[in-house]
This record gives sequence, structure tokens and C-alpha cells, in this order.
Amino acid sequence: MNIIDIIIKKRNGNKLNKEEIEFAINGYTNDVIPDYQISAFLMAIYFKGMDPEETYYLTKAMLNSGDILDLSKIKGVKVDKHSTGGVGDKTSLVVAPLVASLGIKVAKMSGRGLGHTGGTIDKLESIPGYDVNISEEDFINQVNKIGVALVGQTKKLVPADKKLYSLRDVTGTVDSIPLIASSIMSKKLASGADVIVLDVKVGSGAFMKNLDEARKLALAMVQIGKMEGKKVAAILTDMSNPLGKAVGNSLEVIEAINTLNGNGPKDFTDLCIEASAELILEANYAKNIEDAKALAIKQIENKEGLKKFADLVEAQHGDASYIYDPSKFDKSKYVYDVIAKNSGYVNNINSLMIGNASMKLGAGRIKLDDIINPRVGIVLEKKPGDYVNVGDVLAKLYSDDNLDKDIYNMVLDAYKIKESYEATPLVLDIIK
Amino acid sequence: MNIIDIIIKKRNGNKLNKEEIEFAINGYTNDVIPDYQISAFLMAIYFKGMDPEETYYLTKAMLNSGDILDLSKIKGVKVDKHSTGGVGDKTSLVVAPLVASLGIKVAKMSGRGLGHTGGTIDKLESIPGYDVNISEEDFINQVNKIGVALVGQTKKLVPADKKLYSLRDVTGTVDSIPLIASSIMSKKLASGADVIVLDVKVGSGAFMKNLDEARKLALAMVQIGKMEGKKVAAILTDMSNPLGKAVGNSLEVIEAINTLNGNGPKDFTDLCIEASAELILEANYAKNIEDAKALAIKQIENKEGLKKFADLVEAQHGDASYIYDPSKFDKSKYVYDVIAKNSGYVNNINSLMIGNASMKLGAGRIKLDDIINPRVGIVLEKKPGDYVNVGDVLAKLYSDDNLDKDIYNMVLDAYKIKESYEATPLVLDIIK
Repeated sequence: MNIIDIIIKKRNGNKLNKEEIEFAINGYTNDVIPDYQISAFLMAIYFKGMDPEETYYLTKAMLNSGDILDLSKIKGVKVDKHSTGGVGDKTSLVVAPLVASLGIKVAKMSGRGLGHTGGTIDKLESIPGYDVNISEEDFINQVNKIGVALVGQTKKLVPADKKLYSLRDVTGTVDSIPLIASSIMSKKLASGADVIVLDVKVGSGAFMKNLDEARKLALAMVQIGKMEGKKVAAILTDMSNPLGKAVGNSLEVIEAINTLNGNGPKDFTDLCIEASAELILEANYAKNIEDAKALAIKQIENKEGLKKFADLVEAQHGDASYIYDPSKFDKSKYVYDVIAKNSGYVNNINSLMIGNASMKLGAGRIKLDDIINPRVGIVLEKKPGDYVNVGDVLAKLYSDDNLDKDIYNMVLDAYKIKESYEATPLVLDIIK
Repeated sequence: MNIIDIIIKKRNGNKLNKEEIEFAINGYTNDVIPDYQISAFLMAIYFKGMDPEETYYLTKAMLNSGDILDLSKIKGVKVDKHSTGGVGDKTSLVVAPLVASLGIKVAKMSGRGLGHTGGTIDKLESIPGYDVNISEEDFINQVNKIGVALVGQTKKLVPADKKLYSLRDVTGTVDSIPLIASSIMSKKLASGADVIVLDVKVGSGAFMKNLDEARKLALAMVQIGKMEGKKVAAILTDMSNPLGKAVGNSLEVIEAINTLNGNGPKDFTDLCIEASAELILEANYAKNIEDAKALAIKQIENKEGLKKFADLVEAQHGDASYIYDPSKFDKSKYVYDVIAKNSGYVNNINSLMIGNASMKLGAGRIKLDDIINPRVGIVLEKKPGDYVNVGDVLAKLYSDDNLDKDIYNMVLDAYKIKESYEATPLVLDIIK
């Protein structure tokens, strides 16, 4: 077998077989095939695509490049949740304890985040004492004991993805559906869960700009999961606006706590219930989606989800008192009000601008070794559909520095205020 | 400017500007942009193409990566000829002295060949004493004095092409029209001629498999030349069969001599006249193509072309007596007859098979440092249209070794013999 023939075969639009895909991925991972051949191969895939079988073989080849978590020692159904990422997305902090409080096992390893805010792991670290570095044995014991663990990645999962992603990033081959689907799913499969719910974001602030493309990506990922014998559902959600009100690490943990208390923003609460219900249904803890939603709502109302979150924090050596009293969280030095200059209905809040403003405040990182400031961020006091008068507070900037006019204007300009408002749904489709 | 943006721009099918193309090519030539980005860029060009302006800017950027020959000290019109290469193609050996004998200046630098037989330079070296390594000053003086020089490449012409070609070769990005056109034309422009005639080969034995693709390539090259203010014509010729009868280095020189004597094979003679006529016409040495052809034929009939070939050999320290008496050329140890097993009309002789057989005999090189045996090769005694009886000699193998059955069968199998024959034209189209 010869990588040039494989590149040309794909370039000419022909279907690759399992052995050819393995040859390319193994060769690249083992430094036998050079990056200049793989980048041409990736560009050929960008143009010619891959059918479900090819995409599955690609995912498997990537999956087999590293360790695969063995969750067989955990009793019961293991579930996992993945979001393609969006501004203000703290869904895992709510969904994980919520479904765990029903007895469904959540053994979740997450990476750190690059971009507007930190990842799930970074957000959890804003809780004093919370330890994300736990041995695999303790991780499994904890899930067996309390039903949930949210930790950093310990094992060398999917090294092929790291190498391929770095190459795609600098060769214009990021936005290809089979490449995105295999990247996400290889990591999900390596994490060992039986049931996977994917939150695919759609819209200007998201990676998938339109619903049609997002549906294709969702379908590709669901097909990979099914071929591997997993239960997979993908929720397509609108990311034209930031999710919830809080953007920033401790601010988002506080919003997650509020949501588990039944006081979360409506859009975020709805999405958490939707995602939890899919997990509950696929894990066979409910007969239909209505029953599953009712169960999720019940676990908010009876505070079982909140209690499970506190248990999780305590098990991982965090100060659980913060969960019951979020006012204990460290405050930023200053809070600046962003004031409306026009009256009308908030129609849209540009996610990308809010994300960039949040990063400029210090809530996110650009390079992997940047240090995140857990206290800073933005709270959107007004959300789409709210009516505002001139002089009303649109948003609050939580900052440790003097007021930065650029950041202020970025947030102000992110608000599109018009005379009327028509609501659009948050959940656009569910594919399974 | 950023190479990732340039890759994505081309990937998305947008037109690149001069600065972007220069940025990519200069960055690559100067080792600032890594090969893995350029291979992705080349694959994007493969899929999205380049319009005439982009192709011209690409050619110019490549051209400017190295030296450019300054032929301004040569008086009169300077012409050059290029062939995309084919089995038995010794056209330059005839055309260069033929047009030079009319006073048209031919200052030609050629590379060595890789493949079935040597390049023009290798073929000339089968003439005892012929020196291909001449200083640039002597080269220019010689053209001013006798009107023609055929030498090896002395200057560092188009290093970008060498680098790009090596990369294309291993990344499945060879067969892209703008990439082929810019590769050929950057070298032709670097050679400094005013008039360029291109011989684009079409057919199973050639790089361009069909006439439509060959026309596109020809048009792309003609457009590049025109944008640079050159006169360019492209002759599209059928390469389903080897050109002429001789394949091999000294064998081809002998055939060129025979052709200049008026005794060449018809197909080869016709092509030499056609290519010479285009050069004569574009150099304004004739009013129309009929007059130009008549002039070319006259220079064969009056032996002026042959005399100019002898002058060329003498000027470059070769033994010119070989030109007047080709029987002096060194002979191979053995000559084996390939015998017809069927009777009928020769319809086709597979060029690729004849080329491979010739290389196996030692006439070509696989690696750049392989040594060519000038004596060996194949002479096709029967050509398409000839009627053969069982037992007739189809071809002769000139070999220094014992008979190799594989080579024998390769040549025998190359002949397609059928009950009837319909002639096809050699020159398929002319584009200018």
C-alpha cells in the first residue's frame, strides 16, 4: 500500500477501504507518513467527502491510536454528553449531576478550553479545592459510589486527533464534516460511555453556520456511534445568542447552581432539560421523551440534582458549601454596567462579540499556558425578547481592571435592539 | 498576509491576487512556508483551478524564484521549442538546426531526461566529443556566430519549480492544468526566447490522456506566454504511437540525421516540418503557414538543415563527421529481431510498453544518477498502416545483453495487428 495512491483514490472521488484509511492514519500517527502528504489527503477529503463507512473507519483508526477508557467496572448504563461549544455553554455542569441523581452513571473526562471562556474543567476549578486530577482507579470508584465524576483527561486518548487537528488548523481543512465528526466521535468513543448525547450548535456564533450543515454533521456522528453499537442522539440548538446569561468561569458555575435550584435563565434551563431527557430516554430510564422531561424537571424541583452536584464537588475535594451558598464565590474587583442607548426589544446578542469581550476581560485563554481569571466575565441582564428603555442596564462586566472602552462597546454593539421581536426556537432538531 | 487565509480563499473557489500568489510561492521557495501548507494549497488548486491571470501570476512568481537568461546580446529573433515528452521524440534535434539554417536564432538550454530514454542533452552526448557544458558567454557567442546552441542547463533556473514538482509528485497533485502550465512556462520564460512553440502530446502514452484536456493545457500555456509579451503556439499531437521509428539515444540521433537528409519516417518528418513552420511563421520569416512549411521542406531538400546540425556539433567540440556518416556511430553488441506472430495491418504500437522496453534495455534512467547506454534501444521496422505477414520483422532490439524474453514480449505485445487499418492524423490541433 502506498499513501500517494490513497490520496489520488480519494482525490478522484473513490471510496477508501478500511485498510487504506488505517494505513494513512497509523502511518501519520507513527511518523512514517509525513505531514505534507496527510495535508493533501485532508484537502482531498474536504472536497470529496467520506461516506458513513469511511467516516466510521477513520474514527476507529483514530480511536485505536491511543488508550481507550475501560468503564466495565462501573455498574449500570454509562452516559456522556458533548457540545460542539458555544458562548455561555455550561450545560454539563447541570446535566451531569441531574441525570446522575436518577442513578444513571456519568463518568466524564474533559479537556481544558481554548477560546472565549475555559472548558468544563476550568469552570469547575473556580470552586475552591475542586480537584480535576484524579487517578483512574479513584475516578471509577467515585462513579460507582456517587454516580458521577467530572475530571481532567488522564490517559492518552486519541493522539491521532491531536496531530490531525493541529495540521487541519493550519492547512484550511478544519470545516469538513467527516473530519469534524471523526474528531469528536473518536474522543467520545475513547471515553467508554454506552449512551452519548451530542449538542450541535448552529448559527453565526457556532462552527456550523447553517441548519443543513449541522444536520449533516449530526447525522454523521450518530451513524458512527451506531456502527460502534452505542446509543447516540444529537440535539441541534440555535447559537445565534449566548446560552443563558453568564459568560465567565465562576459566573457560569453560579448560573449552573441557580439552574439546579430552579432559578436558571429560561433558554439555558430548557436546553438542560432537553439534553437530560435525551440521556434519560436513551439510558432506558423513561418510556418516552415526555416522561424523561418530567423526570428531569422533578430532579430540579426536589433539589436532587443540586444535592448531587454538591456530592460531586465534595467527592473531588471541593468546598461544597459554595454550591448551597454561591454568594461565597470570590468577586471581581469591579462591576461595570453596560447601558442601553436605544429603546426597543432585544432581538439578538452577537455571541462572537460577547465571547471576545469575555476573553479580553481574562475569562478565556488564547494559548494553552495562559492563566484564566475565574472571577471575571459578563452577565447579560437583558436577553432576546426583553424590552429595554434608554438607560436600562443591558449587561454587567465583571472585571479586575479599569473600564476598557473597547470591551464596553463590544458588548453594547453586540445587542441588536429593534421595534418588534419574534421568538425563535432554541432546539432546532433532534437526530438519532 | 497569511498562508492559511490564502489556502482557504482558493479552497472556497475565490480568485487569488498577484500578492497572495507571490506570498505563497516566495514563502515556500525561501523555506518560510512549510511543505504541509503548500501541499494543501496545491490540492485546493487541483480542485478549484486558476483563471488565466492567476496562472500567469503563479508562473511569474516561479520564474522570479531564480535566474532568468538574458539573451539581449543575441541579435534577431530568438526561438525555443518544448515538448511535453513522448517515446521517440527527437524533434528538437531536427527543428533546431532546420530553423537556425534560415537565420532564426535558437539558444536552447535543456535538462537531462528521466524515463524511457534520455533528454535532448543525453541524446547529443552520444555524438563523440559533443560538449553540453558551455559557459553562458560562449553559449551566447556561439548563437551569434552560427545561430544555434543546444547546451545543458548552467544557471539556476526556476528553483521554485523543482521544489513544487517534487512535492506535487508525492501528494497526488501532478495532473492539474494550471500547475502543469506554470511549471512548463516558467522554465520556458526563464530561457529568454521571444517565440515559443509547444508540442503538447495527447493519448494513452502521454501525460494528457484526451484532446479536451490537452487543449485546455495548451490554451493555458499560450495565454501565459501572451501575457508576458511572447509569441506562443501550441501543436497538439497524437502520442498513441511512438514518434518515428527509433527509440534510444544514438538511434534517435541517427534518425534525426536521416530526417535532415530527407529520409526520415513520415510521421516524424511531418511533425518536424509542422513545428519548424510554426517557429518560422511566428518569427516572421514567412507570410503564412504554407510558405513557412515550404521553407522548412526546402531546408531539408538543400541539406542546409543537416549542414547546420554539423556546424552545431563542431561548434560544441563534437565529431561532425558522424553527422555526414552516421554509420560511424558505435553499435550495440547484439541486434534481435522481433517477429510477427499474426498477419494484418499494424493499427497501434503502445508507446508506454515500447518506452518501458527501451528503459529496460538501458536507454533511459530511473534515478538521476543512473548511467545511460547510448547504443541500445529499439527500432520499429513496422509502423501503423504497414501490412505484416507472419514471420516479418516488426522491430529490432539493440542490446548489449543476452536476449531478455520479457523485453522481447513487451515489444511484441505493444503491436496491435488487425484486419483493417484507418489512419488517424498526427497533428490534432494548433492553438495560438
